[in-house]
Amino acid sequence: MDQVEAQQDLAVRAKVSKPERQDKKPKGKPAAATDTKGTADTKGISPLPFVVLISLHLHYPGLTVSRSEDLAQWYSELLTKAGIVSYYDVQDICYILEPPLIFAWEEIRTFFDAKIKTIGVRNCYYPLFITRENLEREASHVEGFAAEVAWVTHGGKSKLEKPISIRATSETAMYKDFSDKIKSHRDLPLKRNQWNNVRWEFSHCTPLLRSREFLWQEGHTCHLEKSDADAEVLQILDWYAAVYEELLAVPVVKGRKTENEQFPGALYTTTIESFIEANGRAIQAGTSHALGQNFSRMYDITVEDPSPKADGEGPKPPLHVWQNSWGLSTRSLGTMLMIHADDKGAIFPPRVAEFQVAIVPVGLTARTSEADKQKILEETKNIGRTLSEAGIRVQCDTREHYSPGWKFNEYELRGFPIRIEFGPKDAAKGVITTVRRDTGEKGTIQISDGKAMASEVQALLDKIQSEMLERARKMYQDHIKYTSNWDDVVPLLNAKNVIRMPHCGDGECAELVKKETAEICKTENMDPRAPSMGAKALCVPFDQIELQENARCTRPACGKPAVNYTQFGRSY
Amino acid sequence: MDQVEAQQDLAVRAKVSKPERQDKKPKGKPAAATDTKGTADTKGISPLPFVVLISLHLHYPGLTVSRSEDLAQWYSELLTKAGIVSYYDVQDICYILEPPLIFAWEEIRTFFDAKIKTIGVRNCYYPLFITRENLEREASHVEGFAAEVAWVTHGGKSKLEKPISIRATSETAMYKDFSDKIKSHRDLPLKRNQWNNVRWEFSHCTPLLRSREFLWQEGHTCHLEKSDADAEVLQILDWYAAVYEELLAVPVVKGRKTENEQFPGALYTTTIESFIEANGRAIQAGTSHALGQNFSRMYDITVEDPSPKADGEGPKPPLHVWQNSWGLSTRSLGTMLMIHADDKGAIFPPRVAEFQVAIVPVGLTARTSEADKQKILEETKNIGRTLSEAGIRVQCDTREHYSPGWKFNEYELRGFPIRIEFGPKDAAKGVITTVRRDTGEKGTIQISDGKAMASEVQALLDKIQSEMLERARKMYQDHIKYTSNWDDVVPLLNAKNVIRMPHCGDGECAELVKKETAEICKTENMDPRAPSMGAKALCVPFDQIELQENARCTRPACGKPAVNYTQFGRSY
Ligand SMILES: [Zn+2]
Ligand SMILES: [Zn+2]
Repeated sequence: MDQVEAQQDLAVRAKVSKPERQDKKPKGKPAAATDTKGTADTKGISPLPFVVLISLHLHYPGLTVSRSEDLAQWYSELLTKAGIVSYYDVQDICYILEPPLIFAWEEIRTFFDAKIKTIGVRNCYYPLFITRENLEREASHVEGFAAEVAWVTHGGKSKLEKPISIRATSETAMYKDFSDKIKSHRDLPLKRNQWNNVRWEFSHCTPLLRSREFLWQEGHTCHLEKSDADAEVLQILDWYAAVYEELLAVPVVKGRKTENEQFPGALYTTTIESFIEANGRAIQAGTSHALGQNFSRMYDITVEDPSPKADGEGPKPPLHVWQNSWGLSTRSLGTMLMIHADDKGAIFPPRVAEFQVAIVPVGLTARTSEADKQKILEETKNIGRTLSEAGIRVQCDTREHYSPGWKFNEYELRGFPIRIEFGPKDAAKGVITTVRRDTGEKGTIQISDGKAMASEVQALLDKIQSEMLERARKMYQDHIKYTSNWDDVVPLLNAKNVIRMPHCGDGECAELVKKETAEICKTENMDPRAPSMGAKALCVPFDQIELQENARCTRPACGKPAVNYTQFGRSY
Repeated sequence: MDQVEAQQDLAVRAKVSKPERQDKKPKGKPAAATDTKGTADTKGISPLPFVVLISLHLHYPGLTVSRSEDLAQWYSELLTKAGIVSYYDVQDICYILEPPLIFAWEEIRTFFDAKIKTIGVRNCYYPLFITRENLEREASHVEGFAAEVAWVTHGGKSKLEKPISIRATSETAMYKDFSDKIKSHRDLPLKRNQWNNVRWEFSHCTPLLRSREFLWQEGHTCHLEKSDADAEVLQILDWYAAVYEELLAVPVVKGRKTENEQFPGALYTTTIESFIEANGRAIQAGTSHALGQNFSRMYDITVEDPSPKADGEGPKPPLHVWQNSWGLSTRSLGTMLMIHADDKGAIFPPRVAEFQVAIVPVGLTARTSEADKQKILEETKNIGRTLSEAGIRVQCDTREHYSPGWKFNEYELRGFPIRIEFGPKDAAKGVITTVRRDTGEKGTIQISDGKAMASEVQALLDKIQSEMLERARKMYQDHIKYTSNWDDVVPLLNAKNVIRMPHCGDGECAELVKKETAEICKTENMDPRAPSMGAKALCVPFDQIELQENARCTRPACGKPAVNYTQFGRSY
């Protein structure tokens, strides 16, 4: 369906852009036409283009539902109409990641790759394919670890002797190899990372948030000392948090997963957790696992003990290495879009926006002389060139047959952080007009000194970046509710919050919180459309407030002493 | 077998590195020990470490065959022992691309990605999976186009309703989508590229050169005008040539494929061709195809004709867009290794070397005081830090229990462009000693001014880079032989050359050249081990010498007028 709509989108655009169409314009509203920088409803420039504009504006194929009306439909339209994702082929597994998304992912890659190189992580590439024997060896060791995988059984028309699988994560391939590679403590630490472009999962598909194929990164490291492994787990988590906060303008809560939620086979899992205000759902943003010695025992990754031998001491047993693994995926971008986009379309934070600025010439009417028009178009391009040379990513839109209003809608839909308007009135004042995508706020910047102009545009981009984060942070904080009263839990969930409550720290109890809150939802919620999902243990935040003396676990049936505040919520 | 050897490699290393081993040293050769910078055979520093060194040196698990003896075995050992590739799992499809290879590939990616962005190419990601229907639709249109693909038939334990394939190239996915996206000439040009990490082929596997899984890039573009498409084809080819020549120090010949060798469905194919002196084989290095309108007809990628209508003219037929595609893969790195490596191991050109410099402290003997030793080690690290801060990629090897000689062998095997030695004698003179991997040439650089030292090291790296290219270029040129005498062809092939000869330009004739020269090889070659492969048409070089008047096609049975010099040769 989205594909059909996308086609209509383009079809409509192609149609209205035909010059012949222009003389079929309805008349009217000439008054508003004098306002060359009107609000969204009155953008326009002169009777002729203005009317075309109105006609175009009425037909602009933007989003048809608001986020508050139907979040899922809004999200799906957002992705396709803003040119972020396209659907392809008949099955739901296949969608195309379009340039704005790939650009943002490459910014994340560049940022994170530079960070991990400072601690000696080296990139590599392990095979995508793995034989059944190796996969099953792993599956037999860690229950629940081998997720459902895709099996390749035929090559061309011939059946393969042995079917091979497309790996999900690379533990199986990597850890067998690590065992071959690590022969001495001098081979430690061994730190590897790979940037992947496939992972097969059969869960229900929501593009970027839950899907079978996506882009991601997985790091796997081996250490001689547990303390080094522990330090790395937290360092990586900090860098993941920086990816979200500094690049994506998405605030996160750092913490540790409860036992029941940690990675199978891990000693402990640290996590960053984000939050979608629109539906009050938490979303896991990235995880950094201390695997302890569980996998090194399974895969026999050992080194001789380098500590000095006491007199007469016999041979020391080999040491199992301490392992970590950590991963981040394009899900991060799905989260970013969910949080920052609005009913007009996407909003990309400047640092990951493929184009940070759209420049649109305005105020060119049928009464504008050809010479004046050319002058404005030329100057518009010069402004674009000046900004571009200063390192700002600019799209200069001097296309004819598209009205300024049409273009405004388009760049709003696509989420360019700043729109710059430039027309005869601006030229007369020697300024450009800037319009922020996130707030709609307008401003002007002098153009006389190109370098100064570029600096001011860059400063505005930086301001947008930090204000987007601050707004999102406030929004998240407003929805973190502390309680120690079990009766408050479901009402707080229903009011789209996450909850921090005293908890006993027990994994089974955390599971029961989810089960019991789900039951309460079912019995008590009056509105049959209200979600019946229970409260999942999201994390034990590193940032803890002090427990009251003798605080007990909030779940009444437990009642054991509380050991921390645990963050619970409905979750993706 | 290679994996076993790699394990032995590490096992030997681990064994000899045990401190206890040191007192089992044989005595002898103390004289050579005074030469702290001896030749490869006499590197050493004092009786104690010197003897250990000799013992280590004898056991150093380097390459066991020379390139001239057994090229295939040499190449295979090179890849595994130099840590470039590791084998994994039971089938020959699976090998691991190790960090030095990934680093070099990422340098290529960064270089080429920046180039294509200047012409507006945008990165994207199309699904890896494709349904049978879509694949077959394409196969029915272009004969020979749908190579054998891998079929996924099962997800977990359940059979898929419809099997899906893992795509080879992305034409099927992309061109169907392009047809949806392109609705107006204003949507042109459309330029997309993707960086891939899988491609499935069933041909016999030689890591990097012929394999089922590798890293590659594919660009696909659509243009309104044929002239724009043509210009892009050549621009991309120039950038591919720059990747080879500027980054990999591998010279290439630019040209156009003969009809019989061009991409199925292409209008014409341009190519860069490289050459492996060791076996006299040509190797295709990268291709840039003009697809013409063949695929746009097949996939119905059309736009309305934007040219002005004459009075009374009816509706114009839609225009089919002009398409290009172009690709480069990690095969480039296999070619680079084949050309530059030697019997001691790999040689990475500085621009793509993960580590450009290895710094090894030398001359520390049993008679060196602990204070002096610490001073040298400290200063060694300072030198490393200074170079690293200047942007040079340095590995500073102060590991104990490995002798300098052992380290020298290791860095030669791994192909670090420069080794820096630093010991008491260097410290006394205020210099570092540099040793070039490619020529073995030694030099010294003053250390008093850290910045000047780093500049000199950088200058040496630049010199190595350009001299590696010049040597390889001369080698290639020495093996390009012009002839118009059919009887010379097979002897020239047997002497490991490529041949340029007058040709009629006919694809069928080019096929017959291959067939007939193969037959001559079979009948006339005395040595049964001599290759019987015929001369394949590699390209029509852009760089042409003038044909003699009335020149005829060199293949006697043809005898048609010659239209160009075509490059023929045995090929990978
Ligand atoms: Zn409890
Ligand atoms: Zn001929």
